[in-house]
Amino acid sequence: MHILVLGAAGMVGRKLVDRLLADGHLGDRQITRITLHDVVAAAQPLDATIPVEIVTSDFADAASAAPLLAPRPQVIFHLAAIVSGEAEADFDKGYRINLDGTRHLLEAIRAVGDGYHPRLVFTSSIAVFGAPFPEKIGDEFLSTPLTSYGTQKAICELLIADYTRRGFLDGVGIRLPTICVRPGRPNKAASGFFSDIIREPLAGQEAVLPVSDDVMHWHASPRSAVGFLIHAGTMDTKAIGPRRNLSMPGLAATVGEQIAALERVTGKNVVARIRREPDPVIMGIVAGWPRNFSTDRARQLGFTTAEKTFDDIIRNHIDDELGGNFVA
Amino acid sequence: MHILVLGAAGMVGRKLVDRLLADGHLGDRQITRITLHDVVAAAQPLDATIPVEIVTSDFADAASAAPLLAPRPQVIFHLAAIVSGEAEADFDKGYRINLDGTRHLLEAIRAVGDGYHPRLVFTSSIAVFGAPFPEKIGDEFLSTPLTSYGTQKAICELLIADYTRRGFLDGVGIRLPTICVRPGRPNKAASGFFSDIIREPLAGQEAVLPVSDDVMHWHASPRSAVGFLIHAGTMDTKAIGPRRNLSMPGLAATVGEQIAALERVTGKNVVARIRREPDPVIMGIVAGWPRNFSTDRARQLGFTTAEKTFDDIIRNHIDDELGGNFVA
Repeated sequence: MHILVLGAAGMVGRKLVDRLLADGHLGDRQITRITLHDVVAAAQPLDATIPVEIVTSDFADAASAAPLLAPRPQVIFHLAAIVSGEAEADFDKGYRINLDGTRHLLEAIRAVGDGYHPRLVFTSSIAVFGAPFPEKIGDEFLSTPLTSYGTQKAICELLIADYTRRGFLDGVGIRLPTICVRPGRPNKAASGFFSDIIREPLAGQEAVLPVSDDVMHWHASPRSAVGFLIHAGTMDTKAIGPRRNLSMPGLAATVGEQIAALERVTGKNVVARIRREPDPVIMGIVAGWPRNFSTDRARQLGFTTAEKTFDDIIRNHIDDELGGNFVA
Repeated sequence: MHILVLGAAGMVGRKLVDRLLADGHLGDRQITRITLHDVVAAAQPLDATIPVEIVTSDFADAASAAPLLAPRPQVIFHLAAIVSGEAEADFDKGYRINLDGTRHLLEAIRAVGDGYHPRLVFTSSIAVFGAPFPEKIGDEFLSTPLTSYGTQKAICELLIADYTRRGFLDGVGIRLPTICVRPGRPNKAASGFFSDIIREPLAGQEAVLPVSDDVMHWHASPRSAVGFLIHAGTMDTKAIGPRRNLSMPGLAATVGEQIAALERVTGKNVVARIRREPDPVIMGIVAGWPRNFSTDRARQLGFTTAEKTFDDIIRNHIDDELGGNFVA
């Protein structure tokens, strides 16, 4: 089978591609070809035994999608997006890429016609929800995003459900928790500190914690995110019904619980590298974010996390990203 | 103040304009000018003491909105849409008018800049909800439409909330119940029979009832719909917060309760003009529709219906549309 990955140069995209190449199959079907698309060239995977094609173009360009669909990929993983902070800072760019780009893709799929009916896995976000929240956000809670990014994701969810209902494609939207521990360097995302306070101390670096220890948030590891994508790409979608967008399982943890887990896994020295420096702006942003979910539908449909506790998240990070080592 | 009505040639639009002209003011502000826009020319109101301008253009055309906004209307009533059945039959036309048209409008408002910040009242629909439902749909129930029309309305709701949050306009979306009794002739809308079984017998005509008597639905009179629009155009929006889209109050009634009310108000002869002719297609469509709501937010924000019982709805129709008379 031929798989198309949109947004392949991003962190989750890279990890997904690594997994696809390592597995060699998706579900019970052998992968014969993978196309990696992004606005910057995705890295050519080393030692790939499957033909991998790298395509670079602007996802927001109405003409970008058709050539990608010409070979009729059976599964499309759509991870292309600009992030929350950038969509808020640049209103036009956010709508152009996160909304118009997706709509062009859907229209291009529909335009192929002739029985083409690919599985489309869309990475949505818990940013489709906006405060005030119940203690746990359930599967029937409304989407009232408080960011333009969340608005764009919520709109794409509606479009994918309608295009699926009309028979143009077979869509599944998965709302990823915040990915933790996110590898790489600290960035300017307001949510960055949830990963920084784990990743940086493990690397012997200081990390800044801008919120209080009682802030709760909803996390999943990169390993879980890839697992959700694979499952969404292979599951029997008949069982989903018309509500095609699902909040993914995760772990609710307070910052204090994150830090306690870090201490259990690594010791006091590592934890001492976290510097508390309250930032009222970030505290204000984070106050509007989802904290906890009940994800019964996703669990019933077979989505599972790769971790049971936050300790597991830290251990998986040490194994997957640090070769089993950290700076004690 | 200057008021712009989009979709002014439709039934609700005409009734809104009649009310605005009769009142001469909106809230505590005198109306100095009204612009009526539609794809077909709205009728020039007779005896209007306020200047009324009629503009005809295609709402889906990106160039349509700017000229309408040039005189900077302070309140815009946006009722322009193609209806549910047509949006389902013609996928492209539905998205072009109901989604792209609204987006062009929002962008054109934003493009005016220079402190322009109009109140935008958007007529959404209970079609944003899709089965399965709880017994009553509450203010925090998710939007999972089962029609392209409902999808387009739900997307416009999200856009209006985001454009409001970003400070480009002051939007309020109101989800109208099914309007009953809808004046005019029977049409092909699947929901038409809810009005047909009242309006046609009152006019001495036979009406076909295609569903069973226990089918429950959510109704409001044309008088209530106009009242909702006026309130949305005048209310203090600070009290709403970021959740700018509200399910409007209405009356839940079964078809059997509608018929019993008709008999109470008019007698057995009128009711005898209803012919039961079950239609499995219409029964299937109606089974996916919302039946009942709790509309606490809208009520707390001052939205009220013009009727307490279905008997009131019938009496209002006889008064407003039939000059107080019916065929006994």
